[in-house]
Parts: sequence; structure tokens; C-alpha cells
Amino acid sequence: MVDKSLIDKIIVGERRAIARAISYIESDNNLTSEYLKELYSKVGNAYRIGITGPPGAGKSTITNQLTKIYRKQNKKVGIIAVDPTSPFTGGALLGDRVRMNDIGMDNGVFIRSMATRGSLGGLSKKAIDAADLLDAAGFDIIILETVGVGQSELDIAQAADTTIVVLVPESGDSVQAMKAGLMEIADLFVLNKCDRPGSQQAYTALQTILMIKEHDENTWLPKIIKAIAQENKGINEIADEIEKHKAFLIDKNLFQLKRQNQTKVRIKEIVEHKLKDELWSEEREHLLNSSLKNIFLGNSSPYHIAEKIIQQFFNKS
Amino acid sequence: MVDKSLIDKIIVGERRAIARAISYIESDNNLTSEYLKELYSKVGNAYRIGITGPPGAGKSTITNQLTKIYRKQNKKVGIIAVDPTSPFTGGALLGDRVRMNDIGMDNGVFIRSMATRGSLGGLSKKAIDAADLLDAAGFDIIILETVGVGQSELDIAQAADTTIVVLVPESGDSVQAMKAGLMEIADLFVLNKCDRPGSQQAYTALQTILMIKEHDENTWLPKIIKAIAQENKGINEIADEIEKHKAFLIDKNLFQLKRQNQTKVRIKEIVEHKLKDELWSEEREHLLNSSLKNIFLGNSSPYHIAEKIIQQFFNKS
Repeated sequence: MVDKSLIDKIIVGERRAIARAISYIESDNNLTSEYLKELYSKVGNAYRIGITGPPGAGKSTITNQLTKIYRKQNKKVGIIAVDPTSPFTGGALLGDRVRMNDIGMDNGVFIRSMATRGSLGGLSKKAIDAADLLDAAGFDIIILETVGVGQSELDIAQAADTTIVVLVPESGDSVQAMKAGLMEIADLFVLNKCDRPGSQQAYTALQTILMIKEHDENTWLPKIIKAIAQENKGINEIADEIEKHKAFLIDKNLFQLKRQNQTKVRIKEIVEHKLKDELWSEEREHLLNSSLKNIFLGNSSPYHIAEKIIQQFFNKS
Repeated sequence: MVDKSLIDKIIVGERRAIARAISYIESDNNLTSEYLKELYSKVGNAYRIGITGPPGAGKSTITNQLTKIYRKQNKKVGIIAVDPTSPFTGGALLGDRVRMNDIGMDNGVFIRSMATRGSLGGLSKKAIDAADLLDAAGFDIIILETVGVGQSELDIAQAADTTIVVLVPESGDSVQAMKAGLMEIADLFVLNKCDRPGSQQAYTALQTILMIKEHDENTWLPKIIKAIAQENKGINEIADEIEKHKAFLIDKNLFQLKRQNQTKVRIKEIVEHKLKDELWSEEREHLLNSSLKNIFLGNSSPYHIAEKIIQQFFNKS
């Protein structure tokens, strides 16, 4: 059952209540959607910034420095860091959070790191739920930070008003081809660690790629900002560019439209997620397992079994 | 309606019949699953090799050279090349196919390039359907080639008996972190273009990463093969290692188990794909669109709308 007093505490921004509600989201508690339903009328006032890029590009440092700028403007900042862990990258990413210590003690800042165990898709969904929660709790800026390793950066861009892609000079080769996905979601590129060798070539390469992107006066053309986040160089420019992008969206009547499209995609995902949950009940998992052997005996096919399962789903539901 | 004579022609390996059936698969023809159902009792004899890696790593060349080896052993080879096109990479990938000219004229080889327009997920599904078709048509070896840019390589690994990840010395940095996904699917690494600078460092880096991978006598430990595919160097070693991997799977009783698990995942995907199709009917798209405005008026939420849609789905189905 929904605890009304928790709702009230979240709305006034009580930190412990927020933390508890995010834990509900993380543990995939069935109550989550009930809480979010109650809170949703308060959602929509925060500006959402997505920050993505390869591991080690300096995303946390940029988040950190940007947060300080927003705090000087007296804005409350909520940070959701999505850490897709893998046997190969797990530890390092979580370690990044340590660097956040200097902003973590500030009462106008709320930081939550969400790590994945298993499916990444599910994690992004949870991160967006958490962002809604912080939005309802009165945070002015919400930063969604994620490592770009496949799907997560697309999910985050799908939830952000402005998406920042952070690259380093060494990502040059990836930039050209591998990260085509990143190219398409960026509203703003940050070429970080620009004191490293190869930064000018990387900058030129990025510019070349951007030039072939089709655009007209109603399309936002992403800018490339050179930065050395560790030394706080380029951060004001990033904050300015975010403001410009926001102004552009509002000026061209794209702001609400973008959010509407994002919400539409999100509802579809919620529906599909829920349906999938109902679909793979113990009963149907069992039907699947017991049907498998028929395939290897040569008297069935994946398509036959799929039909049987769908039939059973509709009859039972 | 299923054309029985087409089925008969596919089973005896008639090329035009195969090409036509793959076109059905590509166009998402509703008949596809009916054809595959009819053919499925003939599926399961081919050995499936997945080849993936970044663009320009030399996947096509390796496929080409491997095919020549199998042809000398008198094995029939079917090749499905999945080309995820993006505004940024599209053309180059398709151009690769030109290099296949020297094997393309061989009657014991069937090459089909499948390009994506839109969703990648759907494409992998189609590629696997096409592989089943070639399997039923009597091809001994099926090579599934795909660019590793996110999800597609995982899907291909999910359909292959042996998965080869091709890297080049320059992918060194990506290797360490970004491509954690690739690390986990590889049964065999090929470090191609080993005449380029940095190949020894890349080899060492790869080895270091592999060493931290947990394994015991029942786990296959991927080997790294150095190659210069353009000069046909390392190709025999690749073929040998594929044989070793196959023997290992059989010896440890993992071969059927692996295929069974893959089939299970595949059935789930077919079911979910089909359900999604039925879910997003015109009627429910309309319900979604017309409900959206209530969110922005502040008297609904994504979760409310999602529930309404699910309810409507079950009432109407």
C-alpha cells in the first residue's frame, strides 16, 4: 500500500524519504508505479541533462563541476549515475563516485549511483523513474550520467532535454564509426582532456563528421567544446551551451514536443515491460522448457512453440 | 499460403528458391514463420560460425578466406552478412561485399547481405531465420557476419556455435573497456592487420584481459590468433581453432546444451516480437496518442496510461 506520508515527504524534498523511494525503484518493488502515479502531477519542472561517453572520459568530473555552477545559481541538483557493471569494467566505474565527495555534502545536491546486475535495459528504466522522483521532489536540474556501452546511452538521451557526449582525444578512432549511435544523440560534444596528445586531430575528426550531418534552421547543430574538466577548463562553456540548447528548443517550439515524444516511447516501454513480466510466468516458462525437447526430436520448431505459448497466454490472461 | 514446391526446392538447395525465401524473410512477410515451420525438421546439421568486430577490422576478408578453406574440404558454405547501416557508416559496409567477388561465383557458396533500415534487433532475427533456411537447404557451414556496434553482435553470438571476434591493433583502447560485451561472447579472437604498428601491445593487452577471466576445465578459454587476412596469414589457424572449439563443445557435452539454450532464448524473442506486433495495433497507438495530452495537463502519468493500454489489450484480444 502506498504510504501517503512518504509521498508528502518526497514532495517537500526530504532526503531520507527520497532515498527510501529510490530503493523501492531499485528493488523493482511493485509499489513503484503506485508511488510514481501519486507523484506525477509534480513532475515536469526540472531540466534534465544526460551525460554519456566511454569509461574514463571524465563524465563524473564534468558532472561535479557543472553541479558547482548550478549551486552558485542556487539551483538544486539531483544526480543519477548509471553504472553498467561488467566483469571487466565494474570496479573502476563505481570508484568514480569517490570524486564526488566535495559536492556530496551539500544539502542542495542529491547523488545516487545505480548499478546494474543483469539487464541494462531495466536499469535505464529505473534511472528514469528515479529522475521523475527527484523532479517531483523539487530538484531544478537533474543530471543523468551513464557510460556509453551500447543501449544505456540511447535510453538516457531518450530521457534528457539536453544530451552531452563526452569524448577524449583517444576515442578518435571509435568516433568515426563505432559510436555512430553517440553521434546521433549528442546535443553537445565535450572533448575532454584536451591537454593530451592528438586532441587537435580528434577535434578536426569530430568536426568533419558533424559537417556531413544534415541540418536546417530548425535542427540544432551540436557544438564541440574543448575541456580539461580536472582543471575546470571549459565547464562554463558547457553550462552556457546547455542554456543555448534549452533556449533553442523553447524558441522553436520543440521543447514540449520533444518531451511528448519521449513520454510516448516511455509509455510503450512500460507497457512492454509489464506485459513481458506477465508473459513469462512460471507456468509458461515450464511450457517452454518442456516443449524444447520436441524441437530436438525433430517434430517441432521455435515458431510452433512460440504460437503455443502465445495461445496459452491469451487463454489464461 | 505456403507454396509446397518452394519448400521442396529449398530442401534440395535450389539457389533461386533460397533467394526468394530470404526475400520473404527480409520483407517481414507473414508467411515466413509458416515456411520455417515446414522446413524446421531439416534444420540443425550446419555448423554456425559468427564473425563480429568493429568496422574495417577485416571481417569480410576473413569470411572470404575461411570460405575458401571449407570449399577445399568440399563443404557448402552459406554466408549471411548483417550490415547495420547508419547515416555515418552505411556506405562503407555495403562496399565490403564487393571483395567477395571471387567466392561469389562458386556454386557451393551462397552469400546474402542483409541491411538494416531502422531497428537492428529485427535484423538479427531475420538473419537467424535466413541461417535456418540455409541450414535446411543443406549448407554445411553457415557464417553469420556482423559489425559489432551494440546489440547485433550479441544476437549473432546467440545464434552461433563458435563466435569469432576480429580486432585490429588500433582497437586496443576500446578493447579494454568499451567492448566488454565483445569480450564475453568471443570463443576466439583474431587480431587482424598484425603488420600494423602497435600489434604486439594490442596482443599483450588482450591477453591480460583474458587472464582475468575466470575459467576451469569445463570452460573454454578463447585463444588469440594473429592474422593478416589480406595476405592469407593466420587463416588456417582460425579454421583449426574453430575445429578445436567444436570438439571441446562435443567432448564436454556442451554442444546440444548450448543450442538448446539458444533456442530457448530465440523462442522467447519470437513470442515477444509477435506480442509486440499485436499490442501496437492502430487502435492502441491511437489510445496512446490521445492519452498523452492528459499527462501534460497534469492529470495522468505514464503509469496510468500504460495500465489503460494493457487493460484494453486483454479485453480486446
